[in-house]
This record gives sequence, C-alpha cells and structure tokens, in this order.
Amino acid sequence: MNAPGASSETVASSQLVAAMAALGRQARAAAHELARARGETKRAALKAAAGSLRAQAGQIIEANQRDIAAAKAANLGAALLDRLMLDQKRLDATIDGIENVAALADPIGHVLASWTRPNGLRIERVAVPIGVIGIIYEARPNVTADAGALCVMSGNAAILRGGSDSFESSKAIVAAFGDGLEKAGLPRAAVQLVPTVERAAVGLLLRMEKDVDLIVPRGGRSLIERVQTESRIPVLAHLDGLCHVYVHQAAEREMAKAILFNSKMRRTGVCNAAETLLVDRAMLPALAGLLAPLFEAGCEVRGDEMVRAIDPRIKAVVEADWETEYLDAIIAVKIVAGLDEAIAHINRHGSHHTDTIVTEDEAAAARFLDEIDSGVVLHNASTQFNDGAQFGMGAEIGISTSKLHARGPVGVEQLTTYKYKVHGRGQLRP
Amino acid sequence: MNAPGASSETVASSQLVAAMAALGRQARAAAHELARARGETKRAALKAAAGSLRAQAGQIIEANQRDIAAAKAANLGAALLDRLMLDQKRLDATIDGIENVAALADPIGHVLASWTRPNGLRIERVAVPIGVIGIIYEARPNVTADAGALCVMSGNAAILRGGSDSFESSKAIVAAFGDGLEKAGLPRAAVQLVPTVERAAVGLLLRMEKDVDLIVPRGGRSLIERVQTESRIPVLAHLDGLCHVYVHQAAEREMAKAILFNSKMRRTGVCNAAETLLVDRAMLPALAGLLAPLFEAGCEVRGDEMVRAIDPRIKAVVEADWETEYLDAIIAVKIVAGLDEAIAHINRHGSHHTDTIVTEDEAAAARFLDEIDSGVVLHNASTQFNDGAQFGMGAEIGISTSKLHARGPVGVEQLTTYKYKVHGRGQLRP
Repeated sequence: MNAPGASSETVASSQLVAAMAALGRQARAAAHELARARGETKRAALKAAAGSLRAQAGQIIEANQRDIAAAKAANLGAALLDRLMLDQKRLDATIDGIENVAALADPIGHVLASWTRPNGLRIERVAVPIGVIGIIYEARPNVTADAGALCVMSGNAAILRGGSDSFESSKAIVAAFGDGLEKAGLPRAAVQLVPTVERAAVGLLLRMEKDVDLIVPRGGRSLIERVQTESRIPVLAHLDGLCHVYVHQAAEREMAKAILFNSKMRRTGVCNAAETLLVDRAMLPALAGLLAPLFEAGCEVRGDEMVRAIDPRIKAVVEADWETEYLDAIIAVKIVAGLDEAIAHINRHGSHHTDTIVTEDEAAAARFLDEIDSGVVLHNASTQFNDGAQFGMGAEIGISTSKLHARGPVGVEQLTTYKYKVHGRGQLRP
Repeated sequence: MNAPGASSETVASSQLVAAMAALGRQARAAAHELARARGETKRAALKAAAGSLRAQAGQIIEANQRDIAAAKAANLGAALLDRLMLDQKRLDATIDGIENVAALADPIGHVLASWTRPNGLRIERVAVPIGVIGIIYEARPNVTADAGALCVMSGNAAILRGGSDSFESSKAIVAAFGDGLEKAGLPRAAVQLVPTVERAAVGLLLRMEKDVDLIVPRGGRSLIERVQTESRIPVLAHLDGLCHVYVHQAAEREMAKAILFNSKMRRTGVCNAAETLLVDRAMLPALAGLLAPLFEAGCEVRGDEMVRAIDPRIKAVVEADWETEYLDAIIAVKIVAGLDEAIAHINRHGSHHTDTIVTEDEAAAARFLDEIDSGVVLHNASTQFNDGAQFGMGAEIGISTSKLHARGPVGVEQLTTYKYKVHGRGQLRP
C-alpha cells in the first residue's frame, strides 16, 4: 500500500520536483492532442497498444514475477499477492479489456442536449474530455492497462501511480502501451507512469493543479482520506465497499444461497465482495442451509448468539464487524426483523457501494432499490456484478464511491465533462 | 500541511459546535423526507414559499435596509453595495425565480439510461438527489431564495451561509421561505441558514462530512481557495469569471460594438461580465468605434501603446491586467494577430468561465467554440448570457467553474446525482 507522500514524512528532492513538473507539462500537451484526436485514431491506438502488450507478454509477466518475489520476501498478505499476480490468463483478460474499450463509441463531441431559447440563442451541451487525470491505485497491474485505455478513449492524458509493489509490472505495461500509441501517431505521454516509488511523488502530484484536472484514488480508506485531505485537485474517490446481501423473508432459498456464495466467495479481495449477510427472522430456519457452502469453502462466519446457536463453528460478532471491509473469506451475519431494519442497517453501517436484496416480493425489492442510498443496488443478483465490464462499459477505472460526477463503475463516459456552445446572431442580454 | 484556516483564526465555542451539529442532523433528516417527496409536493411548497416571500416583502426589504445601512457605515464598495441591495423590483424578480423553478420538471426519479446485458441483467441509471448541500456565498440576498428553491426542487436539503453583510436579509428570506414549506407539509429544515455570522461556523460546516454531501462556494478567489483547502466535503467551485470578448477580423462591426458593450457594461459586478477585449489587428481601424460607447458610459479602458495611440483616455495596461477580474467598469484591450493568438491568450489567461467570439466566419467560430477550454463559449452573443435563467433553467445556484459534475450554470438537474438499479433473476458472476 502506498501512502501519499506527506511532505512531513519525506522531502521531495529538487530532482523529483523537476521530474514531476515535466510529467505534468508533457501530460497537458498530450491532452491537447488527445482532445482533438478522432475516434478512429484513438481506436487504432488502443488496438496497437493491445498488440504491443500481447507481443511483450513475456517481458510483462517476467516483470510481474520480480514484483511477486519481492512482495513475498516482504511478507505481503495472500489477498494482496492475489491482486498483484499477473499470469498469462489475467494478462489476456487485461488485453481483451483494452480491445473492448477500443470497440466502444467515442464519447467525445456528442451533443448531450440542445435547445433554442425564445430569443433565438441555440444552446448545445457537448461532451469534452476532462484533461489530465492522475490515478493513484493499489499494486494491481491490470489497472495500469485499464486506466490507460479508458483515459485514451475518453481523450484524457493519464498520469499513473500504481502501488510500489507493482512498479516493475506497471513499468513494463506502460512501456508496451506507449509503443502502441506511438505506432498510431498519438503521443507516448498520453499515458505516463510516475517514474519512481518515492512517496514524495504523490504529495507533489496532488498539488499539480495547473496540469492535473482530476485525481482518482483507489484503495484503502487511509490512502483515500489522505488524498482527500492533501489534494488541491478535485478527487473522484474509490473508497471501500462494505457490501450487503439481504435475504428477505420472501426469498427463493436456492437463489439466496447461490447469490450469497457468489457475492462473498467469487473473489474475496475485491471491493464488490459482500461483507455482511442480513437475514429476515422468518428465514432463520433456512440459515444453516444458506451458510453451508460458505463453511465448505472455508469461509469464517461471525454472528450474534441467535446466529451462533445454528452452528458451533460460528464465531462471535462485535459491533466493529458491521463496519469492517474484510477483503477476506469472512462474513458477518445479522438477523433483522424485516425490510425496515435491513434498510436502516445498510444505510447506517454500509459504505454506499453495492447492496443486493434476494426476494420474490416485487414491492419489497422496489422499496429496497429506492431507499438504499448506494451507488449500485441490486435485486436477485450478485454484488460482484458492480463492475465496468459486467455493466457493458468495456473496462473501468474503478468503482466510484463519490456522490458527485460519477457513481458506480467509472468507464469512458464517466471520464468526460461537458461545455456549452452557444450560437447567436448578435443577441444582447436585456 | 495546510493550515486549518478557521480554527487558527477563531475558535468555535462549544455552543456553536452544538448548534452546527444540530443543523446537520436536521438537514439530513429533512433530506430523507425531500428525497421521497413527489414533484407536485415540491412544486406546491415552492409556490407557497413564493407566496410567503410576497406577503412578507415589507419585512424582507426592511431587513435589507438594515444590512445596507450597516454596510454603508462599514464603507463597503459600490459593486458590493449593488450586490447587497434588494428593492421591490429585485425581490419580485427573485420571487419570479422561485416560481420559475416550481414550473420545472421534477429532475428526480428519471431513468437516465437503461440497458439489458446478455445475461439478462437489466440496468437502470436513475436520477436521485445529492442529499445535503452547503452553500457559502457572497452578501447577495437573492441567492438565498434561488438556492433554497433549487435545492428543494432537486430533493436536496440546503444549509445556507450568506455573506455576513446580508445576514438580516437572508434571515428574513429564510423565515418566509420556511413558512411556505411548512404550509405544503415539507420540513422547515429543508432550507436552513447558519444562525450566526461567526467565521468559525464555516470551518465547522466544511468538516461535517457525515451530514453534508456537497459544498458550493461562490465568491472571490480567496474564499474559494480557503474552502477547497479546508473542506473534507466535495466542492463545486464557483470561481472568478475572467471573460473575453474576441472581435475577429470578419466581425460585423455594429454587432461587435453592441456585444462588447453589453458584455462589459450591462452589469459590471457579475462573474459573466467581460474583463478583456481581444481585437484582430485587421480590425484596428474599427477599434475607436468599438470603444466609443464604453467611454460614453464612463468605462476605463487600458491598453498597450498600439491601443493607446487611438485615444488619449486609454491608460497603460500591465501584465497583471490579463488576469484581473475587475468587477467594475474597467476593460483591458489587446491586439492579436488572429484566431490562434486569441485562443492561446484566452486558454492561458482566462478562468475557463465564459468567452465569446464575434465573427461572420463560421469556420473561425467553430474553431473558437471547439478549442476554447471554457464552460460556456459563445458565438455572436453577449457573455452575460451565461446564466441559469437565461439558459432556461429557471434559476441558478451560480456558475460552476469546476470541470467535474457540473460546468456552467447550476440548476436543478446539476444538483442531482444518480444510482444504478440492477434487476436480476438470480444471476451469478462467472
């Protein structure tokens, strides 16, 4: 985990200051070129980048193995090692992601709305790129490629700062990506990596408000809170996912069991994994059956006395469990009286990220979807569907937990802003 | 690190801390009610609020006169006094604004987009309120009513902090407004005023991240920079407008003269007023004619030697003029070689707010509208059209200079966010 380089912790050398300033200037210049690039040029560049990554797969996986070895030597936890690891299959998926983005419609230049005023002024709201986007993320190499592809397709220049544990992997990916961009005539500086693992670089990045228009931090709460505190640049936060599965009294039991298992165990180290199971009191007789696949898969279950009465393997839950993102095979279980208590619990303890209700009762589902104040609310589906690719966006920078600008998966559309073009014939304001 | 601005200046009393916390809790509770209120309820509440303001016009104008008297005693400048002043005509316009907002379509609950994935998941992007919005603004009483109306119509609770010079006016407006809300069955706490002019209250407000979802600061650069530095809450900035009128060589001269005069002189204390005139060298012979109405109206003109040669009343311009928002009857004039230099000057020195080109050359206009990186770019129209009411939005909170979430006039649509509702039948993520 990289903490943003608070100037109190680490002093930036004049060399680093100059390097970061150059990064910013190059990004701004690249952003001007990208803003004018046509859809077909951006598509060709991404296809070329995908080709370069495919051609350089050997070097990329080798670089990842150096990262993995160093991370193991540093005793990184299993969930973090899993995030860091890049094998041929994951790299193929990453390259597919770039190609999916290349197949998307160009989000730039669209007239989002237009109208004519009584005085004849014609007003158009037109989608334009944001400019330069700084992305600070965990040691997760696929984000390097996804973020680069999404920024290029949306006409933005990217400055990437991955977790220091993935530095070698990210360097290899950005090098290959840049080769592809250059082949298609776009500037290599469209996607740049902060060229050092020095912590002070992040502190500098957060103050480059002239050359950076948006900071996207992904990762743990402490990283994001520090970024929000230090940044002079607007922040699109990707905070923790404290996601809930709520099994309503009118749930179909087999469906509930499958959705619970998929939401918790498909991958446990991801933000859209469930952390808490809420079960209607009326469903208590079904609880042992719901939990059985979790026990089989080695998941730890925590609950209060009523829940623990069901199975001796269930551990005691404490108040803090309701607000803990385990990122691991652990789940906390709570019995609720019904829909009202479930909604109140989720809105109070959740992180407004992703929550699902399992029920055959349409009215209950409608109330849940209306009243849960989260970016993504689901009915009869796994929480792990909160994902850009699963939403059909090609790929994602991440899942925004901000309420402003973009909520949920951040794809190319979410990386645009707009301007108004106003067409007159000499109108004056009275 | 950033100096914790307010707390170093002024220490909040425990009484103030408690009062602000209560304000936040009440706002959050009101926001929950507002989020569920139907369009017709919100419309009825705004009509009742407009009625209350009309009925209490006497008290409101009296309160404003107390503010004006105090401001004059404190030697407030003419532009600021003009902003502060509320006569029957301006109050009528403000009440009309509330009624215009009441006539708008309810922006909440709309399905902004929906699609079905190959696995059968149906995804809907639905407009929802942001929640609680804290608005910090100048001593401009009409903003109190506009902001309250826009927040209610968009289902948000408002916490208002107007400039201390307008405290009495704002108090009278909020009291009348609340009477109307109550009549229609909406909570009075939907629109609250920070109940003190103590500066420490702003510092507290900026740290109420549990109960406030968005801060909208309006005003001078120092206020907004302070807010951006101190706030733990996302900020939608309303920064300065350094707006340009560019008279291209193919401009129609009479139209250019009228647009320049309207952009500069219609009102000078507003953010969409022009500060800089750029004129193509080829139009130099027309410059005296363009400036004549400005001189007649008492506007000070500044320019370089070439410009000063035209009229002895023209004063010398210095480099800082290109980046000064006068908010007064002063204009800086620069001769440019052509479109390229004009675009470069505006993008470098402007504040990305509002810029207009006057020309009969459609190709030049298209390049200007494309390449000027401002929220609102106009062709053959006055910069002073950058305004919510003029755009047909009923009213506005202000003109956003943020690139994220909302750019340009901020009306009810811009005060919404969205959530995704995902409808499944038991889908699991592979």
